[in-house]
Amino acid sequence: MRPDAIAILGGTGDQGLGLALRFAKAGRPVVIGSRKLERAEAATAKVRKEIPDGDIEGFDNEDAATRAPIVILSVPFEHLVSTVKGIRDKLAEGQVVVSMGVPLATAIGDGAARTVGIWQGSCAELVQALVPAGVHVVSAFQNVSAHRLQRLAEEVECDVLVSGAKVPRERVMSLCDLVPGLRAVNGGPLANARIVEEITALLIGLNVRYKVSEGLGIRITGLPDDDARK
Amino acid sequence: MRPDAIAILGGTGDQGLGLALRFAKAGRPVVIGSRKLERAEAATAKVRKEIPDGDIEGFDNEDAATRAPIVILSVPFEHLVSTVKGIRDKLAEGQVVVSMGVPLATAIGDGAARTVGIWQGSCAELVQALVPAGVHVVSAFQNVSAHRLQRLAEEVECDVLVSGAKVPRERVMSLCDLVPGLRAVNGGPLANARIVEEITALLIGLNVRYKVSEGLGIRITGLPDDDARK
Repeated sequence: MRPDAIAILGGTGDQGLGLALRFAKAGRPVVIGSRKLERAEAATAKVRKEIPDGDIEGFDNEDAATRAPIVILSVPFEHLVSTVKGIRDKLAEGQVVVSMGVPLATAIGDGAARTVGIWQGSCAELVQALVPAGVHVVSAFQNVSAHRLQRLAEEVECDVLVSGAKVPRERVMSLCDLVPGLRAVNGGPLANARIVEEITALLIGLNVRYKVSEGLGIRITGLPDDDARK
Repeated sequence: MRPDAIAILGGTGDQGLGLALRFAKAGRPVVIGSRKLERAEAATAKVRKEIPDGDIEGFDNEDAATRAPIVILSVPFEHLVSTVKGIRDKLAEGQVVVSMGVPLATAIGDGAARTVGIWQGSCAELVQALVPAGVHVVSAFQNVSAHRLQRLAEEVECDVLVSGAKVPRERVMSLCDLVPGLRAVNGGPLANARIVEEITALLIGLNVRYKVSEGLGIRITGLPDDDARK
């Protein structure tokens, strides 16, 4: 396991691929995971095409989860539980699992501007309930537009509310510095993920009403900029 | 009832008083309501002191609710139901009731950075369930800092997500133009208030973590500015 590597499970989807592109562009080793190895390899080829000198590899999810200290879950809500159940025996104490899932009602055939309620409170807390003790769950990146991530020439104008226990939260907050335009904001305890996840549904509705196909973002106003890492 | 008047029930509280100051400063007739007439009159005196030529009057809530086509509910969550039940017989068809309430867990003795669940989905939908048919409920202003509203010399840097049926929603969106720095954003159907209300709890937590006593706000990024009134 390379200490600066970042694994992205579901890295074949729009948002996971966007993060993979950005992290690879920033010079970090990126491991893309997928349920099927050949899909992970196809996504890897896409990233290599954009970033020829990028350090990027593709594996199936189980394998990918063992190859980085930070494992980002970028799978659709309906595959979240099965994905976590599929990898949890591979996770080691001290690893950080990043939940960027949102319980969009598309999972039950309803619209993407609405959510369903999760017993544990949020996708992030659901993941926390599934992983072994000693594995840290942090919530982040839910509100970041997949399309804007993929436009490498442009900044992604969005704050990232990062929630979880202090030490792993700060590790994930520092990932935001790798993507121009993203700003990490201390989102407090993991339970706050339930609010951050809902904001994504609100943004999806706004994308439709305002016909912004590349996706909107959010900023917290009034925050002392040099203070945002507290 | 004067057609350009704005009634603010609970206008004695920080946020209601802030809106009263801003609307009075913009030249609109403002009616402050309170459970007790003398408290409404005291708040009115405060506004007059800041804005000597302001058109402002104080009444008890029942009376105030009959004096403006737009009635803003700015009462703490624990008084919301009793306030609406107290005025609903006075409301007339076509009046617009603005819900700016947030179900903060302070109502049950827990913290302000958390909320309680509302059966109807949100404060706004709870209000909708209580008012007579023909009265329109619109959700707005939840995320606007009371302290920043009261600093009349400064702009309030915040977007206002306004939710509800089209025609009353647009009437409430136009109120945002009265306050420098506020920008109205079409928040879609009233049910979206459940997300907007939660954002306030998130901002309250951020105010504490970042020690921003004057209060933070939010902006939606990527929105075409000249298009925000769609």
